[in-house]
Amino acid sequence: MSETQTTSTPWIRIREAAAHVGATVELRGWVAQHRSSGKVQFLVVRDGSGQMQCVAGLNDLSAEQWELGTSLTQECAVIVRGLVKAHPKQTGVFEMVLSHVELVGRAPDYPITPKEHGVDFLMDHRHLWLRSPRQQAILRIRAEIIRAFRDFMDEQGFTLVDAPIFTPNACEGTTNLFETQYFDDKAYLSQSGQLYMEAAAMALGRVYCFGPAFRAEKSKTRRHLIEFWMMEPEWAWATLGDVMNLEEKLLMNTIGRVLDRCREDLKVVERDVSKLERVTAPFPRLHYNDAVKMLQEAGRPFEWGGDLGAPDETELSNRYDSPLMVTHYPAAVKAFYMEPDPTDPRLSLSCDVLAPEGYGEIIGSGQRMSSLELLNQRIDEHGLPHSAFEWYKDLRRYGSVPHSGFGIGIERTLCWLAGLDHVRESAAFGRMLNRLAP
Amino acid sequence: MSETQTTSTPWIRIREAAAHVGATVELRGWVAQHRSSGKVQFLVVRDGSGQMQCVAGLNDLSAEQWELGTSLTQECAVIVRGLVKAHPKQTGVFEMVLSHVELVGRAPDYPITPKEHGVDFLMDHRHLWLRSPRQQAILRIRAEIIRAFRDFMDEQGFTLVDAPIFTPNACEGTTNLFETQYFDDKAYLSQSGQLYMEAAAMALGRVYCFGPAFRAEKSKTRRHLIEFWMMEPEWAWATLGDVMNLEEKLLMNTIGRVLDRCREDLKVVERDVSKLERVTAPFPRLHYNDAVKMLQEAGRPFEWGGDLGAPDETELSNRYDSPLMVTHYPAAVKAFYMEPDPTDPRLSLSCDVLAPEGYGEIIGSGQRMSSLELLNQRIDEHGLPHSAFEWYKDLRRYGSVPHSGFGIGIERTLCWLAGLDHVRESAAFGRMLNRLAP
Repeated sequence: MSETQTTSTPWIRIREAAAHVGATVELRGWVAQHRSSGKVQFLVVRDGSGQMQCVAGLNDLSAEQWELGTSLTQECAVIVRGLVKAHPKQTGVFEMVLSHVELVGRAPDYPITPKEHGVDFLMDHRHLWLRSPRQQAILRIRAEIIRAFRDFMDEQGFTLVDAPIFTPNACEGTTNLFETQYFDDKAYLSQSGQLYMEAAAMALGRVYCFGPAFRAEKSKTRRHLIEFWMMEPEWAWATLGDVMNLEEKLLMNTIGRVLDRCREDLKVVERDVSKLERVTAPFPRLHYNDAVKMLQEAGRPFEWGGDLGAPDETELSNRYDSPLMVTHYPAAVKAFYMEPDPTDPRLSLSCDVLAPEGYGEIIGSGQRMSSLELLNQRIDEHGLPHSAFEWYKDLRRYGSVPHSGFGIGIERTLCWLAGLDHVRESAAFGRMLNRLAP
Repeated sequence: MSETQTTSTPWIRIREAAAHVGATVELRGWVAQHRSSGKVQFLVVRDGSGQMQCVAGLNDLSAEQWELGTSLTQECAVIVRGLVKAHPKQTGVFEMVLSHVELVGRAPDYPITPKEHGVDFLMDHRHLWLRSPRQQAILRIRAEIIRAFRDFMDEQGFTLVDAPIFTPNACEGTTNLFETQYFDDKAYLSQSGQLYMEAAAMALGRVYCFGPAFRAEKSKTRRHLIEFWMMEPEWAWATLGDVMNLEEKLLMNTIGRVLDRCREDLKVVERDVSKLERVTAPFPRLHYNDAVKMLQEAGRPFEWGGDLGAPDETELSNRYDSPLMVTHYPAAVKAFYMEPDPTDPRLSLSCDVLAPEGYGEIIGSGQRMSSLELLNQRIDEHGLPHSAFEWYKDLRRYGSVPHSGFGIGIERTLCWLAGLDHVRESAAFGRMLNRLAP
């Protein structure tokens, strides 16, 4: 029940209906569907929290209101009042017997009709498309995933530290970076908060950032957004094994939360939840060397030393019901700050988590280099400017400790958990190669 | 207790010490202070969750470890083990009797010493400055405020919807906008997610976004960050009065959380908490017309029609212990989408919340225009390009409803609650006019 009251009838949200059976309440929302015989009108109202069917017989409304009711079209904004009843057959479903209908905003020729529309048309009308039950459900699942991530990290004693978006150096080349004039300097939009989180982890022990990241990649695939949200925990004193266990717990916890709190929404997006229910810990763990063998045995033309491509990832992850943790990638295909594997320095203490069902990489993680000497060497090997990394090197000059962390992409996790075919549905206003509006 | 274990001694975080009194545990952290007489060593270890004093007598350590202990300097990374004891006099304080000291990373000539440093020096070393107790405390209070905001909005039935950062149009002039090349187009970094939230509110009823915003303002004050975080709730069917009540509840809830969960940190930053405890709801509400009279009576050269400047805000807000809600600003000083006041169309249905103690505006809020006709007129009056607003106008074409929302800045709220003099301490890596690094 909310604050503004024009009458003594309480304004409720549809998802609160169970608590109001037998009472007369007010709903404020939009017309999702409307049909009428000469004697009965059926009005389905949505208010963002749910949908409710409202029914009126000829005698329930005044002649004027009856007339108004029949004139309603999709997405008209309405205030309705009436008696809440439990559905005679379906538990958890409620109906309203209408006693009052009020039109607040018309919606002549609403562009998105129940018929099929092309993707471009829908994306051009994204501001309205969000109103469809499927898009609403996806946004709610997204919000629940984010909340589950944050709650989990907080419970594990990690402190949220927001990383900066503007960064001064295009450390690893400008190819995939967005550049902007920052007063008299150039600034670049962050692709990752990790280096900053390493500094914060030396202060607070366990930290995470959670914000947008930007990649100016000219790729047009089902998996790439230009602007995406990422959570990046960093943990002082932790090894690769520690963060892998943490990733596993985070994903199990998130699946549990989504299955628990988003059942209805998963139904709306037609997710086969049995596939999520089959995910169990511990997750399969596959050493890079073994991954190479598996790929070669499967007849893929893969040579030791290369990075896994999307088809390789699919080949491997399809063998498991749970996310696959591929570990110890060659140092050469990973970032310069990865700690080498002490048992084989060609390899790195790294792990990518590949979602099942072909959804690909959702987590990248690793142990960070703690030796200043080795870090200097890697910066040279990668041809990076030392000056840009002096502050980062300070973390090794003053009380350096083993530390590890990971990054998890929200949109890809959402695509997997909600079973989305294309990443464009995973953000309210997704930014892609050819999509900057609305 | 965490995952990696090198011995059977459990690794604990200092804030968990109470649960381990009488047990031998391991701490991993950094040396905050160290002093030694010939017979006793005192080592204060910080691990990001707290500080603990560790004591060793000559007989507690081997000769080698005793020697190592005396060589430790500020910010050396150490693993220590020993028996946890409750402090004989101070409740909630625990000490360790050392039985093992291990050096993991040296910190020769750590640049930030307990002596005074200049602000520029500290900001240049922000990645290390974060390790000081005061900066740690501020980051933890910041995280708690953000968590309190999110928890509150979620409990109120609002759904998190992330607004895009890249926007296609410099709708209201490019002066304060950061521009970037977006493939073949220009894109601008968002200053507010509000317009997008209005669209989302028509889908989900109650929504909020929470992310970074960017203002390319050439101002160098104690209050301005170039990059700041903002929460922006938007509520369909809500009036100005509704969101004002919501703002009040949000702030009361947040103060309660911070007082409840950040007592120790507030002590570290030397906040006078009695000033926070004196904040009570309902907050004082002041009509713009009355504010003008008050200012004039106070002898300020203020004319009806103007916007409140920082000194005006301070003059008014200093009269109250609680945040001051100034309402009904002239339409001319507010954004084009503000709903006019039906009782005086020169005014708008708007409200700014001014924090007490001179901290200034922390919330801007208002009821949004619901009439398409009036919106068109305002777009003309402001000389804005209609094409950029067609999607926004669609929200008035299809099922338009009264709706209201607000924006609250994290850094300014943090400055107030933690009693910070300057906004530079309110973000881990604050971006200012002359500050883009580290």
